Amino acid sequence: MNQNPAELKSWVKYAPESDFPIQNLPYGIFDDGKGGPRAGVAIGDFVLDLALICEKNLFEGTGLEGNPFREHRLNAFMEQGRSVWRAVRNRITELLSEHSSQIRDDHALRDRALVPIENVALRKPVYIPSFVDFYSSEQHATNVGKMFRPDNPLMPNWKHLPVGYNGRASSIVPSGISVQRPMGQTMPEGAETPIFGPSKRLDYELEMGFFTGKRNPMGACISTTEVEDFLFGMVIVNDWSARDIQKWEYQPLGPFLAKSFATSISPWIVTFDALEPFRTMGPKQQPPVLPYLQCEKPWAFDIKLEVSIRTSKMDAYQKLCSGNFKTMYWNVAQQLAHQAVNGTNVQVGDLYASGTISGDSPDSLGCLLELTQGGRSPIQLTSGETRTFLEDGDSLLMKAWCEGDGFRIGFGELEGTVQPAQ
Amino acid sequence: MNQNPAELKSWVKYAPESDFPIQNLPYGIFDDGKGGPRAGVAIGDFVLDLALICEKNLFEGTGLEGNPFREHRLNAFMEQGRSVWRAVRNRITELLSEHSSQIRDDHALRDRALVPIENVALRKPVYIPSFVDFYSSEQHATNVGKMFRPDNPLMPNWKHLPVGYNGRASSIVPSGISVQRPMGQTMPEGAETPIFGPSKRLDYELEMGFFTGKRNPMGACISTTEVEDFLFGMVIVNDWSARDIQKWEYQPLGPFLAKSFATSISPWIVTFDALEPFRTMGPKQQPPVLPYLQCEKPWAFDIKLEVSIRTSKMDAYQKLCSGNFKTMYWNVAQQLAHQAVNGTNVQVGDLYASGTISGDSPDSLGCLLELTQGGRSPIQLTSGETRTFLEDGDSLLMKAWCEGDGFRIGFGELEGTVQPAQ
Repeated sequence: MNQNPAELKSWVKYAPESDFPIQNLPYGIFDDGKGGPRAGVAIGDFVLDLALICEKNLFEGTGLEGNPFREHRLNAFMEQGRSVWRAVRNRITELLSEHSSQIRDDHALRDRALVPIENVALRKPVYIPSFVDFYSSEQHATNVGKMFRPDNPLMPNWKHLPVGYNGRASSIVPSGISVQRPMGQTMPEGAETPIFGPSKRLDYELEMGFFTGKRNPMGACISTTEVEDFLFGMVIVNDWSARDIQKWEYQPLGPFLAKSFATSISPWIVTFDALEPFRTMGPKQQPPVLPYLQCEKPWAFDIKLEVSIRTSKMDAYQKLCSGNFKTMYWNVAQQLAHQAVNGTNVQVGDLYASGTISGDSPDSLGCLLELTQGGRSPIQLTSGETRTFLEDGDSLLMKAWCEGDGFRIGFGELEGTVQPAQ
Repeated sequence: MNQNPAELKSWVKYAPESDFPIQNLPYGIFDDGKGGPRAGVAIGDFVLDLALICEKNLFEGTGLEGNPFREHRLNAFMEQGRSVWRAVRNRITELLSEHSSQIRDDHALRDRALVPIENVALRKPVYIPSFVDFYSSEQHATNVGKMFRPDNPLMPNWKHLPVGYNGRASSIVPSGISVQRPMGQTMPEGAETPIFGPSKRLDYELEMGFFTGKRNPMGACISTTEVEDFLFGMVIVNDWSARDIQKWEYQPLGPFLAKSFATSISPWIVTFDALEPFRTMGPKQQPPVLPYLQCEKPWAFDIKLEVSIRTSKMDAYQKLCSGNFKTMYWNVAQQLAHQAVNGTNVQVGDLYASGTISGDSPDSLGCLLELTQGGRSPIQLTSGETRTFLEDGDSLLMKAWCEGDGFRIGFGELEGTVQPAQ
């Protein structure tokens, strides 16, 4: 689409502050109780039923094969490749744009194709074969490093490669699914032997993650110019973390059960095509990175972020932090090029999360560990309560959005509530 | 089966030293070029075609649903549960036992059902949703710990929990698939900045791994008495490792690209039912472990292990190490109970590897890093060559077997050859 995004208008009516204007068109899997879970894009307060649109042959000429939108996950669509993603996106844009009558004036079709978003449940959008979590915010790595290793906060490797580790893919859940406080081993301060029980230092981590939509054969790397063919879209990620379990278990092989009990993702996948106008330069990297990590294009994205909390005694959410994804030291192209440089085969549906996103200011810290300085400075809540770490019944809300010229590319909401340990 | 395993005999003829007597019956996926990859069990020098046996209704009464043996992976069979695994195993034992005529005397069926093992290719037997690698040999953890952290080889947590981390499942390959030397970042001794290139310290790791064949719902843990329903069978694992990449990248989040380029597994899955006669006590655990890690039964298995090397200049394999799986400090029941104690959902087909298996003696060390003392003591080969780490063209062979009374429960061979970096 060569059109200036600000000029695009849809015949579907929505408020100017909607997360889902025609410029966005994020993909998700919705269930309206009829016809089973299937793929849709969000438009204003509606979901456009892509399985139906495809059934009506409205994707003819896009190169789309079969009807992948009938599936319970987006993988079958994702693996059709970037030229199909683009052609389908352009066609949806066309069908929803103000001068297009094909759906707008076919009342029977329009009524079936536009499902009110309030009437649907949103499912996990992708089958995720592998989950990698990076550690790409310099502020977060420094702040947390100080607590675990006061003398040595940022490891010598940190500015040379995007540090990351493999996470647990099976326990990734979509927004709205409650998260159970994990049981585990911890070593209390000053104790001689570890104890077993519910985590006492349960935390969230504000992250963004990207999905890959293309495979590379084992043994073949992916350059930073080739990554574009692999990058399907992004979601908000809450990397729930049990800090006391982590502190005791993580040496020398990294976080394991402190993270694997649950990871939450937002239900709508915002495509890199929708994010394109928000591409920007990230922080200057000094020392210079090795050639395989150098990028021709800017690869940061100006995505505003917000985290709020609501305890069971509160009526409304209270903001804990505001951040921006563009502050990340390592970008998505570098993360993917690094992941594949040893010949690891990337898969359709892999999720690569950024690591906690923290900025320079005290109100831009992406987890409670940082906000409360390791639990030493409790946060005051409007209910009169305080928090160092999460308590049972606490709900976390994460939002992410790009501010366009008269429109907003929103990620929707990522919500999760802490349930007591079993 | 209440019969003494030593008394079991089959009408299929095989040598007494065969890896695959009637007492074994390991599952695999074979491809004979006709009818596509499908499931079989090894018996002597043959593969019994289970898809055909099922098609002939010979599994009637076992509770088996459908014909999961037609699939390209064993997952559909595995998820039918332990009572079906047992009933099917008993039926196969019955069909192959010396007094059973059903297959033996039906020549047309017998000729189709028994495929010579030399005529088949063996595939990756399971779709592996998640891969966890433990670090459960005290000798290995101590030996390697000394090299990375001379003052602090065994971390304080090591004797309290089975240390592990999430690995990369996508790059797990079966025996016979060559492994490409990975490219990556390393920090040479004494250098100021890292360099990029092929790994110079490529190593293997001798491990055993188990597959789970049952799901647990997210949030529910698995006790050490409940694990039996989850444990399907075991394979040999070669956890290829690039030591120079590992040394530079692993702090603070653990091994990542040093391991994710490839992991090899042996093609036959030996069931826990076949391993039952070899159940034995592992090392005494001192200090005592927390209650959730305590076991009622002995959970070590007496499995002999051997690693050999053949360079491109050698005609035959030369032994590098002999070990035994029973020396592992942490056992499979403890590993699975630990993995699930935080509520992580275990899946059908998950692979849990033991970590490198090293014993007390110098000839029982499970990787070159230990055998060559970090590359300082080269190994002398019969070809006149020496090795500190693996060179291009080197082939590694791993074997594992249990010595029964007149029979041998073998795992077959796990072979892999190092290809040059690309």
